[in-house]
Amino acid sequence: MTPKLVAGLEPPYYTAVFTSVRPDAPEGYAETSARMQELVREIPGLLGYESARTPGGIGITVGYFRDLEALDAWRLHAEHQAAKAHGRKHWYDSYSVHIGKVERSYGYERE
Amino acid sequence: MTPKLVAGLEPPYYTAVFTSVRPDAPEGYAETSARMQELVREIPGLLGYESARTPGGIGITVGYFRDLEALDAWRLHAEHQAAKAHGRKHWYDSYSVHIGKVERSYGYERE
Repeated sequence: MTPKLVAGLEPPYYTAVFTSVRPDAPEGYAETSARMQELVREIPGLLGYESARTPGGIGITVGYFRDLEALDAWRLHAEHQAAKAHGRKHWYDSYSVHIGKVERSYGYERE
Repeated sequence: MTPKLVAGLEPPYYTAVFTSVRPDAPEGYAETSARMQELVREIPGLLGYESARTPGGIGITVGYFRDLEALDAWRLHAEHQAAKAHGRKHWYDSYSVHIGKVERSYGYERE
């Protein structure tokens, strides 16, 4: 199946770029990741999210949010915060988060 | 070697999130990609960039720029524009670009 990108977003909206370095498949990671994907979909104002990870390289996840309220609802979600604390302790060598307000976006799709 | 994230960025700055769907190793792609990485490093105001691609999945590249002038210098670079046109014709099934102004960022690094 050809992967699909998040499309049709109308600025303004917010991107939360999460970049990380971690071992490829640390213990407990897959379960927590699946649970977080389930939870984030419940956040009103989540417009979508995308992830990519180069084997042996870095991972990048981008969350798209309608506004900062939606983004903060996810950032401060209790179960998400617990997962992040666990991740810092057990999984991540490093990560960065960059929260940006998008005023311009465009795309291409082959006919 | 453990990969390193772009770190130490002081807001405000801009993120250009480029997400794409393409075959894993299309003809001519690697050479053009290497050339673009060489060129983008010459842009004054480029703060760094990161890429990840899940095999069989999507790719995400994030460019970090000091300001919109730097970002536009890259966006409008003649050789970059030619590469993008070639990419639309030959490589990409789809891509999206989201340009955001970052006012908030934070990170974690294991001691």
